[in-house]
Amino acid sequence: MKRLLKGADILAWEKDDFVCLKNGYLGIDGDRIDYIGAEPPREAYDETKDMTGKLLLPGLINGHTHTGMSLLRGLGSDLPLQNWLFDTIFPVEDRLTDEDLRIGMELSLLEMLASGTTSFTDMYMSPGYTAQSVLDAGMKANLCRPLQSFDPSEDPMTCRRMQEMLALYDRWNGAGDGRITVDFSIHAEYTCTERMVRAAAEEAQKRGAGMHIHLSETAAEQQNCIDKYGLTPAQWFDKLGAFSGRAYAAHCVWLTPEDRALLKARSVVPIHCPESNLKLGSGVADVPAMVREGLTVALGTDGAASNNNLNMFEEMHLAALLHKGVQHDPTALPIGEVLKMATVNGAKLQGRTDTGVLAVGKKADVIAVDMDRPHLTPGIDPLSNLLYSAQAADVVLTMADGRILYENGEFLTLDRERILFEARQAGRRLLP
Amino acid sequence: MKRLLKGADILAWEKDDFVCLKNGYLGIDGDRIDYIGAEPPREAYDETKDMTGKLLLPGLINGHTHTGMSLLRGLGSDLPLQNWLFDTIFPVEDRLTDEDLRIGMELSLLEMLASGTTSFTDMYMSPGYTAQSVLDAGMKANLCRPLQSFDPSEDPMTCRRMQEMLALYDRWNGAGDGRITVDFSIHAEYTCTERMVRAAAEEAQKRGAGMHIHLSETAAEQQNCIDKYGLTPAQWFDKLGAFSGRAYAAHCVWLTPEDRALLKARSVVPIHCPESNLKLGSGVADVPAMVREGLTVALGTDGAASNNNLNMFEEMHLAALLHKGVQHDPTALPIGEVLKMATVNGAKLQGRTDTGVLAVGKKADVIAVDMDRPHLTPGIDPLSNLLYSAQAADVVLTMADGRILYENGEFLTLDRERILFEARQAGRRLLP
Repeated sequence: MKRLLKGADILAWEKDDFVCLKNGYLGIDGDRIDYIGAEPPREAYDETKDMTGKLLLPGLINGHTHTGMSLLRGLGSDLPLQNWLFDTIFPVEDRLTDEDLRIGMELSLLEMLASGTTSFTDMYMSPGYTAQSVLDAGMKANLCRPLQSFDPSEDPMTCRRMQEMLALYDRWNGAGDGRITVDFSIHAEYTCTERMVRAAAEEAQKRGAGMHIHLSETAAEQQNCIDKYGLTPAQWFDKLGAFSGRAYAAHCVWLTPEDRALLKARSVVPIHCPESNLKLGSGVADVPAMVREGLTVALGTDGAASNNNLNMFEEMHLAALLHKGVQHDPTALPIGEVLKMATVNGAKLQGRTDTGVLAVGKKADVIAVDMDRPHLTPGIDPLSNLLYSAQAADVVLTMADGRILYENGEFLTLDRERILFEARQAGRRLLP
Repeated sequence: MKRLLKGADILAWEKDDFVCLKNGYLGIDGDRIDYIGAEPPREAYDETKDMTGKLLLPGLINGHTHTGMSLLRGLGSDLPLQNWLFDTIFPVEDRLTDEDLRIGMELSLLEMLASGTTSFTDMYMSPGYTAQSVLDAGMKANLCRPLQSFDPSEDPMTCRRMQEMLALYDRWNGAGDGRITVDFSIHAEYTCTERMVRAAAEEAQKRGAGMHIHLSETAAEQQNCIDKYGLTPAQWFDKLGAFSGRAYAAHCVWLTPEDRALLKARSVVPIHCPESNLKLGSGVADVPAMVREGLTVALGTDGAASNNNLNMFEEMHLAALLHKGVQHDPTALPIGEVLKMATVNGAKLQGRTDTGVLAVGKKADVIAVDMDRPHLTPGIDPLSNLLYSAQAADVVLTMADGRILYENGEFLTLDRERILFEARQAGRRLLP
């Protein structure tokens, strides 16, 4: 099927940057973009969709989340980190069933589709059927089964988590015409033995899989690692081989300048999670320095228990504002860089070369933002409107691989009422 | 007319704090709340409105904005402050006609109603017919004609701005059954002579009117004032009598501890504008210290040219997150305090004792947020959901003085299409 979107402003990708094409045409052949232009295409299309007044941009890519935690949204707000984690989150997580994980995933998929996210990188106890939920929803995801180990005598290859990780990889990597990618993951330096990190790095490399970690989120994590190993977490992970392949690291709040240079040398992608870092009191990552020094930086929401949503518009908005304020420099981080973090850089993190931008030949992962709203009027500057003025609810169309998944409040692949009902039931069961 | 809202969760006000009443009843008689309870009222109501699944809270009060600037939304994004102001904003402001001011005001009213704001404090060149627009929209506002003077020989009482200020006061103060309040205003220390401040303070006091100023927004403003007068801006304003009556001060980013003590002693209300302060690179006000020391703090968006919207949900969200992150303390500013800033404290700033909270006898300034959304599910904690997870588009009802002004996307007092058309025309005319 060939579908033509006409009349919208298009944030197309040319020469490594966004350009805004006014009142343009975007043609889709099956799952790929086959035309972008200011003039109508010569070829015929089966269907033409009038998108006047809309802004088209690439589907957003959430670089770091924990989908299952959406069931825990709002739990333990404003508590100190240790109380939040140990007294409220962990005890409830211990009670999560496989069914809860599926419900949490589906609740997250609803929210992501309605807010323009087409692809995400998850770190949670992802059994196979959450991958099936992603496929059924029509979305894309990099999934993993995060590894932890506190016992140096534990054999990394025979432990339950590694077995689950390998089974997830074997069964689901590449599923859905590549919509599912399975990566490896070490939860964090402070939850893992050297032996386990080495084994995970080796297994990931054997398969050409990515490596998803938490890195330097808190000052305590950074300092404790230095005290324990004489190395920063980044140096420790590097020494153990975790950065040898495609690797990406959430948070990176407390990186030293040397850590940044190391990440750049190893092409590790830091994932900025400003909202979670603020809410938990972790601090503010020096993203302007990362960008200045040439690192590829992605953007993520973290889990809904520390955010408390999966709204990439808020994350972009915050990333665009925060660094200007704390560095007392309104030029600290240009909005074009922020939009790259939420799109093309996320695709790089995920090892996907066929998405993240609107260009001919790329997969048709496209969202439409309705600019006919009071808070987006007058439309002087589309990029500024998108990054500073828009809200997630301005998204009126979400499409992945050329398939419309969400349009004007309607979910075309997910049963909204069933999922919300199940999520409320699960919430009541989990939180007495 | 007596109207009963039933089935909603209600953020009522008891003993100086919010309490959440589940599935409650809120009765309205004319323009006032006459019942709040968990049980149905005994009295009969003319109309019952089912609000199941909604959260009722007081209409939000935007403590500081410049409504006319909404026409300049998106102009000069990411420029250094001086270039932004002198090269882009001021030249366009010079071209604003009276008609533009009305259009900018009406555009702002649309946005505020759709995002749950019922009352606002404006600082702009407000001629009378912008007051008429507020009245026609059914909203509430504290308006002023900000005074400036650079020439010590200028007679404060005969200059054009003072004449306009006095005329505005005489014609509009108290209009619409008190919905319009006219306050006095000095734009800022760096734009005014001592003579003008003394005169304005005297005129305000004579009338019992409030005083609206910009205070200690940037480091340069603070330092230049000290260099010039040997006083901080707060000390300078105080010396000249500006804090003798009801006074409120936008920004307060660079207050010293002594300034905070002075503001507390004079009952001056600081208005926190986190989004604008970040975007322009001004810095982060120490709001946790203000709250700890017992100041009444309000919340504002500033103008849409430095925000870039009038979305109080974003402002609450940011205030709730920002201080936790920069002070590395997740308990730095509890969300209940943030909601007070956007409601009851805003009412104090405006000198309105009959609004800002949901309680029997208060004006029925009420908004409803639809909690039946994926990103608000499961509904573990209504306050946390409201402050961390909700977006402005979740507002489905906005009511002031018992009159419904906005419901489910429809504006009942404003002509959305006419205003957006005029705003786009004005935008094209102003920005060649």
